[in-house]
Amino acid sequence: MIEKVSLTGVAHELEEFWSQRVVGAGNGNLFKVAKGTGSTNWHSHHDQDETFVMLEGTLIVQLRDGDVELGPGDLLVIPRGVEHCPKAEGEARFLLVGPEITSNAAGGRPDWSRR
Amino acid sequence: MIEKVSLTGVAHELEEFWSQRVVGAGNGNLFKVAKGTGSTNWHSHHDQDETFVMLEGTLIVQLRDGDVELGPGDLLVIPRGVEHCPKAEGEARFLLVGPEITSNAAGGRPDWSRR
Repeated sequence: MIEKVSLTGVAHELEEFWSQRVVGAGNGNLFKVAKGTGSTNWHSHHDQDETFVMLEGTLIVQLRDGDVELGPGDLLVIPRGVEHCPKAEGEARFLLVGPEITSNAAGGRPDWSRR
Repeated sequence: MIEKVSLTGVAHELEEFWSQRVVGAGNGNLFKVAKGTGSTNWHSHHDQDETFVMLEGTLIVQLRDGDVELGPGDLLVIPRGVEHCPKAEGEARFLLVGPEITSNAAGGRPDWSRR
């Protein structure tokens, strides 16, 4: 059965910030929905590129050489090994594409976001 | 240099329907922007899954066991080998994720869309 997923619908169901819910998979990559507010910790993923596709709100991806501000319909690929620290003043909702869940393992997820 | 891409901005620049513009790459997959109107031909991709992320408009993905209607913020993964035939009454704009350009090689692109 091939079914669509409402990314914005899933994003509104999420209870935790900076946590990722897998909604699909293809060609070795997972499609993951997340929401953010405040800031993660600075971190990088040594083994995978991480792609953000913005759904709602504004996300500022801090990089060591400057910030990139993402709004709805924007895409940003963060190559493996590149340090980054996303933050949002309000609430930002986005799709992530990559082979694994990254928020828990890589140290980016802030302590306050855990249950 | 890590730069964001406005997917909707690129979609509005496209001159051809059912043609794909690569805007990024990560983990062996390409991020491709396309627009559609009318219908493609029925086709499948034997070697890759194809993921649609809708940006604007409505796209009806015809499958052999029924249609799936996609609106903004919807995601649909079409597993490799599954026959499909997207169509749009108006103009639909979307992101595709997969390891290669699929429109030209797989026979889905209709003759009228070529220059």
